[in-house]
Amino acid sequence: MPPITNRKLVEVCYSPGQYHLYQEDFDIVVVIDVLRATSAITTALHCGVESIIPVSSVDEALEYKKKGFIVGAERDGRVVEGFDFGNSPYAYMDPTMQGKTVVLTTTNGTKAIQIASERKTVVIGCLNNLDILCSWLAEQHKNTLILASGWKDKVNLEDTICGGAIADILIESRKFQCVEDSTVAAKFMYRSARQHLWSFLRASSHRRRLIKLNIQRDVKYCLTANTVPCIPILENGALVKLQYEPKEWLTAESLAH
Amino acid sequence: MPPITNRKLVEVCYSPGQYHLYQEDFDIVVVIDVLRATSAITTALHCGVESIIPVSSVDEALEYKKKGFIVGAERDGRVVEGFDFGNSPYAYMDPTMQGKTVVLTTTNGTKAIQIASERKTVVIGCLNNLDILCSWLAEQHKNTLILASGWKDKVNLEDTICGGAIADILIESRKFQCVEDSTVAAKFMYRSARQHLWSFLRASSHRRRLIKLNIQRDVKYCLTANTVPCIPILENGALVKLQYEPKEWLTAESLAH
Repeated sequence: MPPITNRKLVEVCYSPGQYHLYQEDFDIVVVIDVLRATSAITTALHCGVESIIPVSSVDEALEYKKKGFIVGAERDGRVVEGFDFGNSPYAYMDPTMQGKTVVLTTTNGTKAIQIASERKTVVIGCLNNLDILCSWLAEQHKNTLILASGWKDKVNLEDTICGGAIADILIESRKFQCVEDSTVAAKFMYRSARQHLWSFLRASSHRRRLIKLNIQRDVKYCLTANTVPCIPILENGALVKLQYEPKEWLTAESLAH
Repeated sequence: MPPITNRKLVEVCYSPGQYHLYQEDFDIVVVIDVLRATSAITTALHCGVESIIPVSSVDEALEYKKKGFIVGAERDGRVVEGFDFGNSPYAYMDPTMQGKTVVLTTTNGTKAIQIASERKTVVIGCLNNLDILCSWLAEQHKNTLILASGWKDKVNLEDTICGGAIADILIESRKFQCVEDSTVAAKFMYRSARQHLWSFLRASSHRRRLIKLNIQRDVKYCLTANTVPCIPILENGALVKLQYEPKEWLTAESLAH
């Protein structure tokens, strides 16, 4: 397929470790960590948290804690010792967090946000904010890279499927195209999965990891599309809620809830 | 799924650039470059070429040429200037090559063979030798890593699907299991594609690249399963034909030809 004039690129990169291979000039990077960092961040800002400062290391998070910040820290699916919460979306619905700044470090998600932050525009994606995010991306109409957080630099199913959903919706709008096989494969994964997301992801290694941690409720929450009409955007090192109402909604043809 | 005793691991790694992430102790590495290096290598040894020395760089290939070796060199889908052939399987059916040693360098495939060569056993896979290879791997019953050559360290569709086919057949035999999402995703890709491989791969970036080079006949050849009952194995730095007759054939449930 030769490039079609006026279509912008949308591509899916499977993990931060492959980010350097996607060197084309993308204007917008969408960071995804469905289980659970970006679902939690989106939920937090929707529920009234003022801003979230993503940090890469637990040490950095500890420094903020000493200064009196509310700080969440997760590694390998668990709350890090010495912190009150990790990346469960439910933790961020707490009304006492409203209007506050929260600092967060997670195994994969905050690392992906950090490496993407050199780009002009970094926004946060998850299944929870799928349609509003796609509507906004289509309105922007710029070259868009979807950066999946993966699992320790390997691909994971849930982020690939979410990335494939965004790419599929944007390409179906005929305003975007893709040229990378990673994107084509992610689209196929999404199309295979969308009618039965929950059972499809039974096979996911990360879901198995989370089941061991007894957080089925979180997993169900994170795998439910379009429950949180909020787009987090990175501004001066902190994620805040983008003020946005879609002029025209872009939605997937069909998607299991 | 908890690990099942006696089952060996089979995993798919999407590109040489991710090989370091698959650190578990694999006994066998299967290198795949469907379009076209491993299809050509398998064809060559089946058609009577004595052995193939894979080298990484064009300079190294030139050194061999000066010494009088038959040398193939491909970069970006084209025969490198100064060489007589690249990685078209048809080039290796030439009867004058029978009993000879051939030196080969390609964009992705020979690099993957090089990085895998530290392992005890390296064999060559493609769609052309799918069933005989799976039969042999099942008989060995060892932890097996399928290393896709990809395209310049990115994932590609045809290698992922071929890797997914091998993993699927081995797991269906109930002698193997996988724990990585990369393998689960490759299996799904294969199952989506197997009834209509040719049209599925229409979307592949590499196939588009090859179509531009007018080598449709090669592509059709490489995408046809089970035409070449030959397993190339790396021995002392050279690929030779493994002497093997399956005791019991393992085959895919169904596969488009």
